[in-house]
Amino acid sequence: MFNRPIPECAENEYKEVAWGIKADGEKFAPVTINRPKVGDFDVKMDMLYCGICHSDVHIAFNQLGGKTMYPCVPGHELVGKVVEVGPKVTKVKVGDHVGCGCIVDSCLDCEVCTQGDEQYCLGGKSVHTYNDRKRYTHIGGNPDTQTFGGYSGSQVIHEHFAIKIPEGMDLKAVGPLLCAGITMYDPLKHWGATNKDKKMTIGIIGIGGLGSMGIKLAKALGHKVVAISTSANKMEMAKEKGADDFVVSKDPESMKAHTSTMDLILNTVSASHQASTYIPLLGVDGTLVQLGLVLEAHAIGVGSLYRTRKTISGSHIGGIASTQECIDLCHKANIYPDVQLVEAKEI
Amino acid sequence: MFNRPIPECAENEYKEVAWGIKADGEKFAPVTINRPKVGDFDVKMDMLYCGICHSDVHIAFNQLGGKTMYPCVPGHELVGKVVEVGPKVTKVKVGDHVGCGCIVDSCLDCEVCTQGDEQYCLGGKSVHTYNDRKRYTHIGGNPDTQTFGGYSGSQVIHEHFAIKIPEGMDLKAVGPLLCAGITMYDPLKHWGATNKDKKMTIGIIGIGGLGSMGIKLAKALGHKVVAISTSANKMEMAKEKGADDFVVSKDPESMKAHTSTMDLILNTVSASHQASTYIPLLGVDGTLVQLGLVLEAHAIGVGSLYRTRKTISGSHIGGIASTQECIDLCHKANIYPDVQLVEAKEI
Repeated sequence: MFNRPIPECAENEYKEVAWGIKADGEKFAPVTINRPKVGDFDVKMDMLYCGICHSDVHIAFNQLGGKTMYPCVPGHELVGKVVEVGPKVTKVKVGDHVGCGCIVDSCLDCEVCTQGDEQYCLGGKSVHTYNDRKRYTHIGGNPDTQTFGGYSGSQVIHEHFAIKIPEGMDLKAVGPLLCAGITMYDPLKHWGATNKDKKMTIGIIGIGGLGSMGIKLAKALGHKVVAISTSANKMEMAKEKGADDFVVSKDPESMKAHTSTMDLILNTVSASHQASTYIPLLGVDGTLVQLGLVLEAHAIGVGSLYRTRKTISGSHIGGIASTQECIDLCHKANIYPDVQLVEAKEI
Repeated sequence: MFNRPIPECAENEYKEVAWGIKADGEKFAPVTINRPKVGDFDVKMDMLYCGICHSDVHIAFNQLGGKTMYPCVPGHELVGKVVEVGPKVTKVKVGDHVGCGCIVDSCLDCEVCTQGDEQYCLGGKSVHTYNDRKRYTHIGGNPDTQTFGGYSGSQVIHEHFAIKIPEGMDLKAVGPLLCAGITMYDPLKHWGATNKDKKMTIGIIGIGGLGSMGIKLAKALGHKVVAISTSANKMEMAKEKGADDFVVSKDPESMKAHTSTMDLILNTVSASHQASTYIPLLGVDGTLVQLGLVLEAHAIGVGSLYRTRKTISGSHIGGIASTQECIDLCHKANIYPDVQLVEAKEI
């Protein structure tokens, strides 16, 4: 961790109230932050809801390898109402509902941004919604002011990073779609599951928040979905979410019955594990995508990959256009996470 | 190893002379084998040349995990002249030059075969040109007779598995194109390097037989090619083969200068090593393809993959249509390995 005092509120900034952690070891409390005033391409949203993600807690309490800068205001699942737009904004208008996910800026110029993968801009240097520094030109205000998340009264973002929330969505449950939703949707899209001509068998490992979202999305896209868990405890839940089948990864018989059957497996497990466990489930040209950041290395035998061109990859959130597609699909297919509402002071 | 005596020559077979190993511990010596007589779709080739691959030696002397069946006649880089064809053969005619690579049968019916990946038929159960059992219906003769390779006077194969050798090719140097050539060509094709609109930066690790072939093929396909080796010893050789640049993987400065620059890396190293060494060289969406069967597991950190959607995969020889494309490209671009001719008795 390190301290990075918030600069004086500049002329092109305004003061806003937020809930955050002022210094290492402290608890959540009100913090006054600076937000940029609305520029030509900016959208100001008044916060209606903001999801509380596991990683918010880890970062707020400096549990992710010491990268937390204080004061820290978390929140990367923002849902709000547009109250002001810059003169050149065309994407949304005052009164619209908008979301803001994990990133608020990237160069928007490199090959990776241009193809819609802003999250991987220049090797992963996109600007996170909080606990980050402004690195590019699409966030106004004082360039030295760090980024602050959605546990606050309002947010101002460049329109490019605003996600339009279709009318009629359940606003209180949209937040996690901007994080867990896109984390699952983007690899589904990248590995072909949004191609309407393709019928795939898709495995989802881990039936928590990410996994449940993955089951619902893969099912809504028309695929056969197989939930995978270490024990049978979550079978009923997985099937309620839409899974067609279930594999108990610690049961050799269950694993054998599904050997070489899957085209794509999304692995949401972030607890220590060995990815090699799941490789036998992949068919020819199958891909295992690691989504959870396991710090321990995975021991991978080449033979398990090269005999039938299997692949191991990883994926990290998703780009803006892809996030919009995800929200639109969730709206159409009525996909939401289970949520519990809390007031800011209860955090 | 195990012994599998050659059955009596059946009515639908003929006897042929070959060079092979009759039993574990013996040396190369003449062996009499049975070949199927020419059936409706078969092509009989008189052997002109047959490449001697490293794996031939390993298998002949039972150095690959005890899977050798004796008598064993190696050879999977066959080059010959067509001397007889079945009445239904349309692909080649008597007098043509043909090649036969690593596989001589597969189901030809599954999704994988249908898409031209016979080498991955039903999870890798294609029939190898030697040291294998007939499993499908496209090899004639006694179904109990094992397969024998090209260290022999003639071979009879189903036309599907015959590769046409264009007129004017240097026949004595074609053999290795059917093994090393396709081993490098198929992953180049699979990961987009035959797409004429794409200009990629392609790394080739290991500058031996496979690596040299990879450099020449990737260059002929119009890409920037970077040779990668543990030391600078092979720099001159790699540049002679066509490499545009060279990375010394044990030199941190050299590695740093090429960080995040490569779209595709083909790793030919089969000695013990850690693939993770090379992951930093990959750019966003880059793929590292393992071609050498390293028995030791590779320790792969998820963070190195998921931050920019990098991928590790493996690839094993290639399909028949792809082998034909490889031969045609080598003909057009005048690509051959360096070869040394030996007589059968010198093996």
